[in-house]
Amino acid sequence: MRKIDAHTLAEDLLSGKRAALSRAITLVESQRSEDRELARELFRLLPRPVTHTGSSSASAKTLRIGITGSPGAGKSTFIEQLGTKLTREGHKLAVLAVDPSSSRTHGSILGDKTRMEHLSRNPMAFIRPSPARSELGGVARATREAIKLCEAAGYTRIIIETVGVGQSEHAVQQLVDFMVLLVLPGSGDDLQGIKRGIVELADLVVVNKADGDREPLARQTKSDYNIALHLAPAREDGWTPRAITASSVVEGGLTGFGESLTAYTMALGQEGLRMRRKRQDLELFERSSNNQSLRLLHEDEQLQKVHLAAQSAIEAGEIDLDKALEQVRTALQNRLSA
Amino acid sequence: MRKIDAHTLAEDLLSGKRAALSRAITLVESQRSEDRELARELFRLLPRPVTHTGSSSASAKTLRIGITGSPGAGKSTFIEQLGTKLTREGHKLAVLAVDPSSSRTHGSILGDKTRMEHLSRNPMAFIRPSPARSELGGVARATREAIKLCEAAGYTRIIIETVGVGQSEHAVQQLVDFMVLLVLPGSGDDLQGIKRGIVELADLVVVNKADGDREPLARQTKSDYNIALHLAPAREDGWTPRAITASSVVEGGLTGFGESLTAYTMALGQEGLRMRRKRQDLELFERSSNNQSLRLLHEDEQLQKVHLAAQSAIEAGEIDLDKALEQVRTALQNRLSA
Repeated sequence: MRKIDAHTLAEDLLSGKRAALSRAITLVESQRSEDRELARELFRLLPRPVTHTGSSSASAKTLRIGITGSPGAGKSTFIEQLGTKLTREGHKLAVLAVDPSSSRTHGSILGDKTRMEHLSRNPMAFIRPSPARSELGGVARATREAIKLCEAAGYTRIIIETVGVGQSEHAVQQLVDFMVLLVLPGSGDDLQGIKRGIVELADLVVVNKADGDREPLARQTKSDYNIALHLAPAREDGWTPRAITASSVVEGGLTGFGESLTAYTMALGQEGLRMRRKRQDLELFERSSNNQSLRLLHEDEQLQKVHLAAQSAIEAGEIDLDKALEQVRTALQNRLSA
Repeated sequence: MRKIDAHTLAEDLLSGKRAALSRAITLVESQRSEDRELARELFRLLPRPVTHTGSSSASAKTLRIGITGSPGAGKSTFIEQLGTKLTREGHKLAVLAVDPSSSRTHGSILGDKTRMEHLSRNPMAFIRPSPARSELGGVARATREAIKLCEAAGYTRIIIETVGVGQSEHAVQQLVDFMVLLVLPGSGDDLQGIKRGIVELADLVVVNKADGDREPLARQTKSDYNIALHLAPAREDGWTPRAITASSVVEGGLTGFGESLTAYTMALGQEGLRMRRKRQDLELFERSSNNQSLRLLHEDEQLQKVHLAAQSAIEAGEIDLDKALEQVRTALQNRLSA
């Protein structure tokens, strides 16, 4: 790739050039320090409101929708239909995929575009496949920055798609205004178990593929989820998560989804959405700040020496955990009181 | 509760008095600083090998078995049968429950004892219900210490039971020699999804309730899990996790479990088990050391002042995340270079 100039990139991005947006996202996905420096320069060049997710007038008009669900829940087809609907309403739509699992076999560029055949040919839509091999920690930051880039490029609806495996849906929930869990008819009978934590992340549960023979079962499943959702403690933002049915293959199959989304944005209001983004910023600040502190301590030679010695002593069976912790504690205390 | 004397407690514990063990576990479950101090004193009084999980000759004869699974998978009955079998083989058995979820309605003392009716009246068995409301971070430490107390009191088989919700099974997997996942017949058809991560924690998957009409389905489910388990990368310790069927209600229904446990301990050997415990100690040291460092930084007045100011500035929309991180980074760097 030839050398990128941050000024040109910023200009092209703001004028809505898709190639520039692609390029900028590739840049923020990179962990290389020269790319990080260039990314920081790029963000400095973008209009200030865009970098202030909490208070920007530009991003206040945008809506970030997270969509998660197990493989087979019908995410791609759902996003195709939803995306088409949104672009018909006049929105520029960006679809970003997040998939930190390395086991995915068809997560490559062609794979994602083929999954959403119509949307990928829609001039109002921009589809960004998940990077080939991404680590979760990096994903949160890169996705957050990619969202800001899309918004800077004039996209008003951002869909973040993730597969319901491991921790990625937690990371995505922290980045979006509205979190949607797609489930299959018949999946509501084990809600005390493993799935419960994921259900609790959702602002909306969509029982998908509610068409043909599956409709009665889908309605039953919707009730199961509604019961489970109503057991959760009340939320401070005034929204009660609900379950609905949907179909991507019948006419009007997404009507309930559209209505729920409207009800949600009405319930929270601009102020509520702004508060949510601010809370996300603050939580991200806590996490990032902790990671940064640990990295700095790790780079401190004196502390690192004590840490490694304690590690070796545990390995050799010379000291126990409490003693080891005491040694590193004393070292840091001395360092801070110096 | 009257004031506890560490010396008396240590003596009673080592002589195998159950009340002393109960009391000592209550002590390590407490977060109060005077209780923590007393707990540390207690551990200092216990024979040294016991506090060295990695290299003790006492604990080398012990085996820690983790058992997880969704509600309904039949954990209690399975543990009743397994526990009875182990005590018949001459082992003193301790069952510790870990349940960080507050939603559990019957996790109280009587609840847990009623769940394992026979075992609770078995003089060779000690059953410890999960603390009423425990937080996950504290659970890992308290459970690790409770295991050591049980081993000091002469218990040679320790079963740690946890419900397959959220992160508790990760915490437990870090504390045991052998991790067992209990699943139901028919549960093997969604192995790409949410469950996958939990399957990957298991040393053994047990398709439980494989009796009567459910036997053919249980065998099919076993095959499904075996296929999924064989897709995982090979392990360094030489063990290949496998799936078996089991029943707690038919004669010999746990034979396969017993054989698998023997095969596992043979495959790893004393050295392999020792290595596993040492690796767990080192990982716990990393995590605990990080938490301790963050706590110390948090208590540092100067750093805390900068942190709070950055927080407020984010809240007021005055600075963005990158700028806030830069401010706390500079503050820590200055502190460390002083």
